[in-house]
Order: sequence, then structure tokens, then C-alpha cells
Amino acid sequence: MAKKKIKRQTSKRKKIRRQSMKKRKKMTLKKLKDFGGHLYKQMITGEFPWIEMPSRSTSNILYDDRLKQYILGKRNVKRSSRNIRHVRPVTQLVWTASFAHNLNKKGKTSTLRDIFYSAQAFDVNFKNQQESDNIITDLETVLGFAREDFNIFPEERSQIFGDLTIEYTVPGYEGNSLNLTTHPDGLAIGPALTTSDFKSTKANKVIVIEKGAMFTRLIEEKAFKKFKALLIHTAGQPPRSTRRIIRRLNKELGLPVYVFCDGDPWGMAIAITIICGSANAAHLKELATPEAKWMGLYSSDIEKYKLPSTKLKIVDIKRLRDMRKDPRYIAKPWTTQITHFLQKKRKCELEAFSRYGLDYVVKKYLPEKLKRL
Amino acid sequence: MAKKKIKRQTSKRKKIRRQSMKKRKKMTLKKLKDFGGHLYKQMITGEFPWIEMPSRSTSNILYDDRLKQYILGKRNVKRSSRNIRHVRPVTQLVWTASFAHNLNKKGKTSTLRDIFYSAQAFDVNFKNQQESDNIITDLETVLGFAREDFNIFPEERSQIFGDLTIEYTVPGYEGNSLNLTTHPDGLAIGPALTTSDFKSTKANKVIVIEKGAMFTRLIEEKAFKKFKALLIHTAGQPPRSTRRIIRRLNKELGLPVYVFCDGDPWGMAIAITIICGSANAAHLKELATPEAKWMGLYSSDIEKYKLPSTKLKIVDIKRLRDMRKDPRYIAKPWTTQITHFLQKKRKCELEAFSRYGLDYVVKKYLPEKLKRL
Repeated sequence: MAKKKIKRQTSKRKKIRRQSMKKRKKMTLKKLKDFGGHLYKQMITGEFPWIEMPSRSTSNILYDDRLKQYILGKRNVKRSSRNIRHVRPVTQLVWTASFAHNLNKKGKTSTLRDIFYSAQAFDVNFKNQQESDNIITDLETVLGFAREDFNIFPEERSQIFGDLTIEYTVPGYEGNSLNLTTHPDGLAIGPALTTSDFKSTKANKVIVIEKGAMFTRLIEEKAFKKFKALLIHTAGQPPRSTRRIIRRLNKELGLPVYVFCDGDPWGMAIAITIICGSANAAHLKELATPEAKWMGLYSSDIEKYKLPSTKLKIVDIKRLRDMRKDPRYIAKPWTTQITHFLQKKRKCELEAFSRYGLDYVVKKYLPEKLKRL
Repeated sequence: MAKKKIKRQTSKRKKIRRQSMKKRKKMTLKKLKDFGGHLYKQMITGEFPWIEMPSRSTSNILYDDRLKQYILGKRNVKRSSRNIRHVRPVTQLVWTASFAHNLNKKGKTSTLRDIFYSAQAFDVNFKNQQESDNIITDLETVLGFAREDFNIFPEERSQIFGDLTIEYTVPGYEGNSLNLTTHPDGLAIGPALTTSDFKSTKANKVIVIEKGAMFTRLIEEKAFKKFKALLIHTAGQPPRSTRRIIRRLNKELGLPVYVFCDGDPWGMAIAITIICGSANAAHLKELATPEAKWMGLYSSDIEKYKLPSTKLKIVDIKRLRDMRKDPRYIAKPWTTQITHFLQKKRKCELEAFSRYGLDYVVKKYLPEKLKRL
């Protein structure tokens, strides 16, 4: 009975989403077209083409306490081709927009590095990839859409596994369904998965995992069944498309998200990026999942579960001290755990659970922790 | 008609392999048991337990010109618990063998890092992971089997995509089939894929690719169909389980393998590791694919296709000079390309093909190159 209900709910949700995915694709194309139209109109009226967008300088990056993420302030910058110093970035931006428009119309994808080289065919020479990456971020800022929306994807891949059925929207696979338990080593989160619709799921939560060994452990020990969980392996800091998938699972399917990382400041940084986003993506709102929860490893877990640990290094301590000045870490459990880490001066990896047998994390830690959260 | 023939061939091959996969699993368990029996017998007859194995010291690593890979020479080392300095490594080795035996019997997998921590539960304290990794390599040397055979897998994952149907042998999935075109972002090569049987394929070659952007490009441009190719993305130096899958595709299905890397000494090093193996795995024979071919990028390709290139750095030049002393690079095309690189002093990445449009590599480079090879 309960199962049926979830199914009905998700099929309803799916319908909502399918429309919004299609809408999103159309909106991206329209935004790009409008951007061209805007420049065209300026030229027709004899104006030098110009562009206005929110400034991404540090002083204009603010932390929004209500949204629990970084946003851009009200200051704008204007770039005009009338100004000789602006001709170069304006031209580069216009070319990048036209390239993105082509990609989207053809249903092809590209990477940041590809774009750097592709530009050379058009004699739009970027000095280096840093320059082209920066122009792509400008385009995101101008349009208010992420580069993944206009089919520019990261090269790195995370993996996903669990009882979620998706429906592809990419050419050649449109309408095909796949259940993400079909391959027990995990499925890559690339362009096809990122743009797919969520059809149905029996899962009631998402567990995001920093390390591959733990991801495999939770599959082998059937944790995904026991906890009805979708598992995502980030392999360190997750690529942006993975952060987006996490957000979508939370927003579209209403699934709570738990982030499970090494017990050290670097694990905490992964968790906070998933939850609150990062300052350098302050111009985008759809990469963060404010409702996601940091599941561990806490400094207090190291003590409580007597996990094998190693001494914090100077660089770890420095990072923890810096966190005290970062507005994203101002609430519990962050504050208490930062203090705890600095007192105990120990850190611990996810693999350390193996100390108590390969199934300990599934039988003991996860049930207790999920209950408490 | 031709298609049918391939199908019949592969179904025959599959049968051969299925037996050998089962046999292999049994053989691993038997080897581990025999190892224990050997020690037991020594103790019963009042001997201090001892172990003998090929030496892995540099002077005993030889290049076999016929096998085209590194092998260990005839020198053996003996470790006896009679010698106080040997008690520690002998004990560690025996514990590791017993842990591996347990893993295999339960059908569970583990990683090098997991083993380091698991040992602590048994008061077998390794000083650091380097020590436990080294003991696992000892176990490989003693048994003549790779650690993947006794279920110790690398954490990193490569990806695979293409028309190959596999049948799983891992618990929970035993007997399930999957065609590797089901997910267009690629499927992770982990424990389940590594231990699966190959059932059928319509592919007639394997293309191994260093970079994710090129892997995605070849999927999007339908290169896997056009060239009837299975695609493997190594993400840099491939993990050992990926090297093994490449070997199996070549040996079991008779598919020729082409390795497609950046045009620089680091790309060449990836290709040579796949083809000839590495010195530090000289104790294992089943990781190399001597029949695989280096497909590029050659230094001469950079010139021929007028690809955007950058200047070689001092470290690149040093690496190229070192290659001249490495016995794996003594034949063509390696020798001519090393000379060419050192003359032109330019290198080039796979993404550089985008200079001529996103489909250039599929329409122009690959057909020409495959024809020549």
C-alpha cells in the first residue's frame, strides 16, 4: 500500500518535472537567442554593442542567511565594445554564446577544454584556458543559467547506484528507461544522466559518499536495500553536475540527503559545498542543497566509535581555523565539531570502519546515525 | 550472415571463458588453502614455518623480449620465522592470506586501504599502508595470482561503453545480463564488471581513451557504431582491473585493441603500460596486452593534422630521453616518434581535435589512422 503511494507520487512528480525539463531546454535556447537579439538591436540603432551583468568581484559576493548560500550583490558591471579594452571580452562572450547555441540546437555536449580549442577554428584566440573558462562563467552570469544547461559539462564523473528509474532525454536514447540498480559497480553521472527525467523510485533517502571503497561497501552489504537509499560516490569534491543531481533528488523527489565524508576539514568542505554551494558559483542558485545534512564523520564519532585516527597536520588545523570565519559554518553541528576537532587534534578516514569488520558501518554506525539525524 | 558468424563465435568463446572464470575462482581458493597447508605441514614436522618466493628486487626484474613484458628472474628469497627479523613479515603475510581466503569464500571485496585498517582488528599492526600494500604484493608473488583474483580491488574506476553483453558472477547479480550500451555516460569498471563473463558482442575492436572528453565525444558522434568499437575511458593511467579487462577483451574475444592518448610522453607511458605492463607488476603476467596498438597521438600526427600544440617542458624532454633507455620502447613506432617529439619539441592533447569541429576526429582522424594500423 505504502509502496503504491510512493509510486503514484513519483509518477505525478515525474510529470511535473518532464514539463520543466523540456521547458528548461526551451528557456535556455530562448535566453541565448534573446542575448543575440539584444546585441543586434543595439547595432541596428547605431549603438556600440554592450553587455551588463552582476559583478563577480569578491566585494559583491554575499552570504544569504535565508537561502543558506552565497549570492551576488546588486553591483553590476558594464562591458561596451566602445571601450577598446572591452572589445576582446565582448567578442569572446558573443562567440561563446553562439557556440553554446549551436551545441544546444544539435543536442551535442562539450567541455571547458573543448571550448578553448574550438575557439581557435573561429580565430577567437583565448590566451589560455583560464581566459575561456572565465568567459563561460561570464555567460552563466549574463544568462542566469549554469553552463550544464547549455551543454558544457565537466570531464570528471561521479557514480550513482540505487533504485531510481530514469528516462533519458539525450538524442538516440530519448524515452529509454533505466533502473540505476542494473550495474552494481555504479553508473557514471555524465550528460545523459544529468539531463534525464526521474520516473520512479522506492528509495526514501540519498546517501552521498566521498570514497569509492565505502560506496562499494554499501552496495555489497546491501545497505541501499536496508536503508532504502540511493548512493552517490563523489570521488572527492563532486563535479557541478553531481551537485545538481543531488539537488534535483532533494527538490523533485523530496528525498532527504545525507553527506558521508572523511572525518577531517576536507571532508567537511565537501559536505558544505554540497549543502551551501561555493563562493565562486555565487552567480548560480541551483547547485546547492540547503536541506542536505552532514552525516559524518564527526570528530565526536571518532571518539564514540573508537575509530583508528591520525594526528591533524598543521595544514588541517589552519583549515579548521579558517572555517570559523566562513559564514557557512556558523551553526551546529559545524561549530561544535570544529571545536572538537581542534581540541582532540585527530582525523579519521571512512575506511577506518573496517577496523571492526567490513559490515560494521552498515550494522552499527549508519542505523544509529540516521536515527539521530 | 557475417553478424551471425560473430555471434556463434562469441557464444563458443563465452563457454570457454565461463568455465575458466569458475575454474579461476576455484584455483584461487585452492592456492590459498595450499599455502596454509604448506605452513601447517612445516609446523607439524617441527619446522619453523618458512616461505619462498621470487625476488622482486630491481636486479631480478628482466624484460622478456618474446613476451614483450617485464618478468621476474630466477632468484628466490626465503623468509623463515626462525629468523627474528622475518617473524613480522611472515606473520603479516599469513594473516593477509587468511583475510583474502575469507573475502573469497564470502564473495566480498576489499581495497588496499581497507586491508590496512582491517588488520588492526586482529592486532596485526602495519606501520603504514605502504607496509600492508607491500605484503599484499608478496602474496601475489607467492601465489602467482593478482590481488583482484582474491577480491582486493583498486578504488579508482574507469568506464566502459559499447555493444558487449556481460553476465555477472557476483552475489546478488549472478546470471544477470547487461548490455554495455544501456547507459550512454558509461558504466564503471569495478569488481562486478571485472569478474563478469563476456556473453556476446557485435564490436570488432576496442578503443582505449585517456580523456573523458574524447570518450563522451566518441559516444555522442556514434563512433562506437561507425567503427564497431567498445570504448574504454581510463582517466589517465588505467587501474589494474581495467588493464585486465582490456587483456580479456583481446584474448577471449580476439578483439584488436587501440590505445588513444594525448600526444606527449605521459600519453605514451599510458599506452606502454597497457601494452607491455610495468616493472613493478613484473610478478604478474595477466595485466598486459602485447597485441594492443598505440594509436596516437603521434608527434607526426601533430604535424600532419596541423593540431594546436604547446612547447615541450624540460620535464617532458627528460622523460622522452629516459624512454630511450627503457626496453619497452625499442621498436617502431616508439623510436621514430620519440625522435620526432625531441626534434619538434611540441606536444598536443586529445581535445585539440576540436580545433576542426567536434566531429573531425570521427570523420577524418580515426578512419585514416585505423586504416593505417
